[in-house]
Amino acid sequence: MTSVDLNCDMGESFGAYQIGADSAVMPWITSANIACGFHGGDPGVMRRTVAAAKEAKVAIGAHPGFPDLMGFGRRAMDVTPQEVYDLVVYQVGALGAFAAAAGVRMQHVKPHGALYNMAVKDAALSDAIAQAVRDVDARLVLFGLAGSIMIVAGERAGLRTAHEVFADRNYMADGSLVSRKRSDAMVHGAAEAAARAVRMVTEGKILTVDGVDIAIRADTICIHGDGPDAAAYARAIREGLEGAGVTVRALG
Amino acid sequence: MTSVDLNCDMGESFGAYQIGADSAVMPWITSANIACGFHGGDPGVMRRTVAAAKEAKVAIGAHPGFPDLMGFGRRAMDVTPQEVYDLVVYQVGALGAFAAAAGVRMQHVKPHGALYNMAVKDAALSDAIAQAVRDVDARLVLFGLAGSIMIVAGERAGLRTAHEVFADRNYMADGSLVSRKRSDAMVHGAAEAAARAVRMVTEGKILTVDGVDIAIRADTICIHGDGPDAAAYARAIREGLEGAGVTVRALG
Amino acid sequence: MTSVDLNCDMGESFGAYQIGADSAVMPWITSANIACGFHGGDPGVMRRTVAAAKEAKVAIGAHPGFPDLMGFGRRAMDVTPQEVYDLVVYQVGALGAFAAAAGVRMQHVKPHGALYNMAVKDAALSDAIAQAVRDVDARLVLFGLAGSIMIVAGERAGLRTAHEVFADRNYMADGSLVSRKRSDAMVHGAAEAAARAVRMVTEGKILTVDGVDIAIRADTICIHGDGPDAAAYARAIREGLEGAGVTVRALG
Amino acid sequence: MTSVDLNCDMGESFGAYQIGADSAVMPWITSANIACGFHGGDPGVMRRTVAAAKEAKVAIGAHPGFPDLMGFGRRAMDVTPQEVYDLVVYQVGALGAFAAAAGVRMQHVKPHGALYNMAVKDAALSDAIAQAVRDVDARLVLFGLAGSIMIVAGERAGLRTAHEVFADRNYMADGSLVSRKRSDAMVHGAAEAAARAVRMVTEGKILTVDGVDIAIRADTICIHGDGPDAAAYARAIREGLEGAGVTVRALG
Repeated sequence: MTSVDLNCDMGESFGAYQIGADSAVMPWITSANIACGFHGGDPGVMRRTVAAAKEAKVAIGAHPGFPDLMGFGRRAMDVTPQEVYDLVVYQVGALGAFAAAAGVRMQHVKPHGALYNMAVKDAALSDAIAQAVRDVDARLVLFGLAGSIMIVAGERAGLRTAHEVFADRNYMADGSLVSRKRSDAMVHGAAEAAARAVRMVTEGKILTVDGVDIAIRADTICIHGDGPDAAAYARAIREGLEGAGVTVRALG
Repeated sequence: MTSVDLNCDMGESFGAYQIGADSAVMPWITSANIACGFHGGDPGVMRRTVAAAKEAKVAIGAHPGFPDLMGFGRRAMDVTPQEVYDLVVYQVGALGAFAAAAGVRMQHVKPHGALYNMAVKDAALSDAIAQAVRDVDARLVLFGLAGSIMIVAGERAGLRTAHEVFADRNYMADGSLVSRKRSDAMVHGAAEAAARAVRMVTEGKILTVDGVDIAIRADTICIHGDGPDAAAYARAIREGLEGAGVTVRALG
Repeated sequence: MTSVDLNCDMGESFGAYQIGADSAVMPWITSANIACGFHGGDPGVMRRTVAAAKEAKVAIGAHPGFPDLMGFGRRAMDVTPQEVYDLVVYQVGALGAFAAAAGVRMQHVKPHGALYNMAVKDAALSDAIAQAVRDVDARLVLFGLAGSIMIVAGERAGLRTAHEVFADRNYMADGSLVSRKRSDAMVHGAAEAAARAVRMVTEGKILTVDGVDIAIRADTICIHGDGPDAAAYARAIREGLEGAGVTVRALG
Repeated sequence: MTSVDLNCDMGESFGAYQIGADSAVMPWITSANIACGFHGGDPGVMRRTVAAAKEAKVAIGAHPGFPDLMGFGRRAMDVTPQEVYDLVVYQVGALGAFAAAAGVRMQHVKPHGALYNMAVKDAALSDAIAQAVRDVDARLVLFGLAGSIMIVAGERAGLRTAHEVFADRNYMADGSLVSRKRSDAMVHGAAEAAARAVRMVTEGKILTVDGVDIAIRADTICIHGDGPDAAAYARAIREGLEGAGVTVRALG
């Protein structure tokens, strides 16, 4: 029986600032990647987001990013692997404390934004992330781009890993994502995104922008939590998967 | 057989900025209060300070403070108990992750600066701190001003507590510290500080600025880690205590 | 001929975070208090807000606050007058550079949040603010609570001042604002706010919560820029004033 | 008659953190590049550093950097030219306000750390810096690496520029600095640094690591203000220059 996890970035509000459609998306997902106060989130937001995920029976993960609130963690920074190790340990620990206080266990870690994108291209950074996660708690699942060196690094560190796919992003023939600088980076329409999600999960295939099918492994699907249509996309993808007989559940 | 713990604030450097005499003081203390990135400290400093404490067989504690690096956590802020709860959970978790990664357990939590001073006078803030510590890890020891409501709050939360005394600060007749705004706030000379430490531990008494003895309980003595004479004070106090037959050891 | 200024806090967004109804409120006001990057705002937001105000022929002012983005500058901090002087000089200079780059002159300075509220009650802080403003540019107008020591401090520093009133806040008999902790802090309804604004400007009177009229001077009226009804309030107040024959214009 | 300026980074302390040998170096230099609160410095440090420079009759400049206090502005960030423009306007304005409050005029702007290094290799960033400086105050002198596109950008923006050389750094044959990752990045010994400074100023030549002389223009020489020997280097370079008949003075 086929199953998949649906994850979404959550808890990126900060102080008086609200961002994201957390409460609208929460009912449709199974794993929440919760910001840890560096690129977004603050201690109060973290506590409330952990509570909301627990209430919705959504699994909890840490979503560590660069210390760049002004850039929302989306700007690449010239950091060393040691610096990355340290900032991941720190942020995973902070989120883990809110999970412990709420009486739930963290399930996973998913790097955010520029940290994720840099790790996909840099084995030393991927190793640093994986080692940090393992050193804090070896039972955590590491989320990484499907088929990328992030997954390899996680396995090398002895972690359970989850190949992550994007239902609303186009892929290159090498399995990487089409750059957001290109006009065809995004897939348009919730129905189309849902159809692609179903095919990735049930067939293990995705049609690339080059017009060829490639094999892809989908353990977890990223749902974007920002934008006006976030909840509609989340619902369409979940209902599409369930309609195709796929079990949607957290990785545990 | 009488024993006492010697604690010192550690790991308050930040990025390129060095502060404190950590390596000079470390050999003389038994518990390190490690800054957690809000009033001082950063992820790399935290990792290195945990490693140095482990190497020196010094027990490790979190030293959470206000999110005010510019003011070094020394400026009172008008925070709610909920905000204090959240910032303590966050920081204790972050430091705990570095302890876990180093294979050691955190022993204690000691609030920093204005957070400590406000908690001494505000039961709601003391309760918020104690509950946060308990919710993250109920085995942690809460350090608080000897005889103050911080200790009461810790006990109310079911935590083990440590009455903290200051060897180089003068006391008022009510057991509070003489304000730093007064010229007689400090005790001068390492020998005098050591003598007062010995008397607090062995006799349970301290001579106040009002010229009367009061009873005081000393589970742990704070050693100041800044200033040019930090190591000399630490050594004098430790040697004074051991010379008086007191066992100097962490609280466990 | 009677005239009054309408001011509103603007440019408090930060990075990816949007806050406030700036573009909806801008057409109805005559002075914009632009956040300077401490409690809100960032360099890009400041540039864009200056440009929008210039385009709308709205006068530009600096809106300095405490270095507390997480608390949006609303938490009192135990700062010295010297610290306040320094943070006001810094922030006024930063906003002034964007004004200079846009070819417009700053008209005024209005402290934000807890800094404003503390200054109303502390002459030394009011003096520090006024001296900072004067030392950066003696032609700037200092906005302060009508009849308060902020105005006195501005005059003592040789600055032009503007007595500020609040159309949607209730007043105490001593001319201070009803605390936001009380249920009757706010006046409800745009029509009621507009009517109060007209009376303050044309009669120089306000009915307090104690049921008595007091004299009040209204050089500028604060329009709240947050909340779903911000633009409706702004429009009602402006149209009410103009309907009563009051000229609405900047102080500049 | 030959003349040259000696500049040094100053005012990079922050809150409780002290860094640099400002007071020891100040007597030997003619231009101070004062940090503006992003990579280092804070409002109080800026005020005190402006006052110290004024007292020493040293010209004042802004030293803007990336918003990365933890990395001291030394980590490259993937910023857009617009972001660079904005952060330069902001920081130059902030420092300018302290200069105005002290009754002195800013002389120059010198980008810091990674911002400087990125601008040397990226014309769009150099243009963004130059335009920001010009838009705030067209009389400011832009400091940039001798012969680099920073100088070209300054000229294109209509600014007066200063070719900057480094007495204690080795040069490549193309006029760029030897990377700090190489063991021969630095010139050792104050006497050697002084000799190289004299030759650059009086002959317009520098011997590169490749063993060939190249032409170089030296309007201003960078003195490093950190390290235990900072003042000794500054003194040796100044005395060497004056002994060779060079007038050491600010650019005006």
